[in-house]
Amino acid sequence: MIDDVFDAAAAGDRRLLARAISLVEDRTDGVLAAIGRLHPRRQAGPGSPAVVGITGPPGAGKSTFVDRLVTQARAQGLSVGVLAVDPSSPFSGGAILGDRIRMDQHVLDPGVFVRSLSSRGHLGGLCRAAGQVVDLMDAAGFDLILVETVGVGQSELAVCEVADTAVVVLTPESGDTVQTMKAGLLEIADLFVVNKADREGAGRLARDLEEAVHLDPGDGWKPPVVLASALQGQGVADVLAQIQAHAAWCQADGRAEWAARRGRGRVRTFLDLVAEQARTTAAAALGGDQAELASALHQGSANPYVAAAHWVDR
Amino acid sequence: MIDDVFDAAAAGDRRLLARAISLVEDRTDGVLAAIGRLHPRRQAGPGSPAVVGITGPPGAGKSTFVDRLVTQARAQGLSVGVLAVDPSSPFSGGAILGDRIRMDQHVLDPGVFVRSLSSRGHLGGLCRAAGQVVDLMDAAGFDLILVETVGVGQSELAVCEVADTAVVVLTPESGDTVQTMKAGLLEIADLFVVNKADREGAGRLARDLEEAVHLDPGDGWKPPVVLASALQGQGVADVLAQIQAHAAWCQADGRAEWAARRGRGRVRTFLDLVAEQARTTAAAALGGDQAELASALHQGSANPYVAAAHWVDR
Repeated sequence: MIDDVFDAAAAGDRRLLARAISLVEDRTDGVLAAIGRLHPRRQAGPGSPAVVGITGPPGAGKSTFVDRLVTQARAQGLSVGVLAVDPSSPFSGGAILGDRIRMDQHVLDPGVFVRSLSSRGHLGGLCRAAGQVVDLMDAAGFDLILVETVGVGQSELAVCEVADTAVVVLTPESGDTVQTMKAGLLEIADLFVVNKADREGAGRLARDLEEAVHLDPGDGWKPPVVLASALQGQGVADVLAQIQAHAAWCQADGRAEWAARRGRGRVRTFLDLVAEQARTTAAAALGGDQAELASALHQGSANPYVAAAHWVDR
Repeated sequence: MIDDVFDAAAAGDRRLLARAISLVEDRTDGVLAAIGRLHPRRQAGPGSPAVVGITGPPGAGKSTFVDRLVTQARAQGLSVGVLAVDPSSPFSGGAILGDRIRMDQHVLDPGVFVRSLSSRGHLGGLCRAAGQVVDLMDAAGFDLILVETVGVGQSELAVCEVADTAVVVLTPESGDTVQTMKAGLLEIADLFVVNKADREGAGRLARDLEEAVHLDPGDGWKPPVVLASALQGQGVADVLAQIQAHAAWCQADGRAEWAARRGRGRVRTFLDLVAEQARTTAAAALGGDQAELASALHQGSANPYVAAAHWVDR
C-alpha cells in the first residue's frame, strides 16, 4: 500500500506525492524501502534534475526570492519542486506561514509543487527527511528542486549538503558581520545573492564577498556574487543563469565535481540510514526484551555510555 | 591516556577539562568509554547540579543575560559551567566572538568555566556532544551548568532537551509573532524572560505570555514570566530564583518530574550512542572490507536505501 502511494507519486500524481511526503515526515514503517524502490534520475549524471539549496539569515528575503525563481524557471518551461525545511521552529513559525501565502500564485500551476517539511521534534531527522523528500521529488520528475531553509544554524548547513548548488542569500544589513562570516559561508556557497540591492551598503557587501571569493587561490569554482531585488524581480534571471552555469561547470570537460558531490551524498545517505535503523531497532528492544535496561536507564542505575557499548558489541 | 585526561578533568583540573571537551568535540576514539567511566552527579537525584538551557532568537541578549546570571550564581557561592553551543554557524560566528569577550570578567574566577562548542560540520553530532560535555561538566563538580544556544532552529530545541530547566529569552521586538510562537515555545519553556524590559511592548509581551501559559488547564508547572534588563542587571536575581523554584518544584512531594526528565535523557543518550556507533562502524567498513560498496555508492550503481537495509540485516 505504501509502495502504491510512492509509485503513483513518482508517476506524477501530486496528491499522492503530498501523501508520500507526509509518510516520510512521520517515519512510517516501510517508507525507506519504498524510496529504495524508486529510480531517482540524479544518479544518472548529466542532464538530471538540479537540486538547489537556498539559505541565509532570517529577513534576507529567501522566500520572496524562491517565489521569483520559480516564476523564472517556469518561463523556461522547467517543472519545479519546492521544499521549505524547518517550519516547526518556534522562532520562524510565523514567518513561514506568511511566506507560503506568497507562493499562492503558483498553486494552480501543475508544473510547480510546494511543500513545507517540519521535523516533528527529532533533530537530525529533519535533514535525513529532507534528503529523502528530495529523492522522492527527483523520482517524481521535477527538472529543478529548490530546498529552502528557514532557520539558521547547523541544520541549514546540512540541508545544503543535499544540494548540487548552494545559494546563500544575504542583505546589506548582514554586511557588518561579513568578516567573521566569510570562513563558514565560503565553504558552502556556490553562489551569493545580495538581495535588497537598492539598500545602502549592497555594493560594498558584494565587493567584500567578491574579494573573499577570490582569496582562494585554487582553480575551483568561484562563487559568483549577484546583486538582486527579489521584490522588484531584479537579478532573478541572472541567478537562475548562474545556477545553470554552476551545474554546467560541475559537469564540463570530464570534471567529476557533480558526480563526486552526489557520490558523497549517497554515502552519507547510506550511513544516515544505518544509524537511523540501529536507533529504531534499539528503541524497539527497549520496549520489548530490553525493558529491564530501559527501566535501569530511567532510574539511573544503568550508565547509557556503558549500555550502548554493550549493545553494539552484542 | 584519554582516561587520565577525563579523570583529571573530573577531579577539578580546568586545563584538562578544556582538553577533554576538545576530545569530545573531535569525536576522538575512546572518549565515549572515558565519559562512561565518570560519575555524573545528576543521576543521583535531588541536590545534584542543575542544567539550565537558555535559548531565544538572535539579538534577545542571551549572552549578556548568561553573563549576569553567572555573576548572580557566584554571589550565592555556586560554581558555574557555561557551554555556548553552535558558534560555528556562519550566521552567528560574529556574535559569539563578541559575546564571549563580555565573559572576560569571569576569566580569573576559578569558580567559573566558560566553553564554546562547535559542531565541526556534523549535524546531530552537536547535540550529542553537548549532552556529553554536560555529563563531563557535571562530573567535574559544577553546581550550575548553563547551556546557551546561539543559533535558532532545530538544534536549539534539542539542546533544551538536555536541560533540567529550559529558559526562553525574548524581547519586545519578538512580540508581534507571539501568537504563532506560542505553541512551540510553550512546549519547551519552563521559564520566560522578557529581556530589554525598558523597551516599548515589554509589558504587553509579558501579559501575552502569561495568558498563553495559563491556557494549559493541567496542574503541571506554569512557566513564570520574568521581566528583566540584563544590561542593567534588573530581574536577574528573580530569574535565578525562579530557576531554583522550578528545580524545587520538580523534586517536591515525591513529584517525579525531574527524575522522569533525566530518565528520558539517559534513554535518549543511549539511543544516540547506539546510532552513532552503528554509523562509525559502517563508515569504517566502507573504507575497509566494504570498499566495493563505497565505490558502488559513489558511482551510483548501488542504491543507498537498499544497501542500508542489507547492511542492517546482516
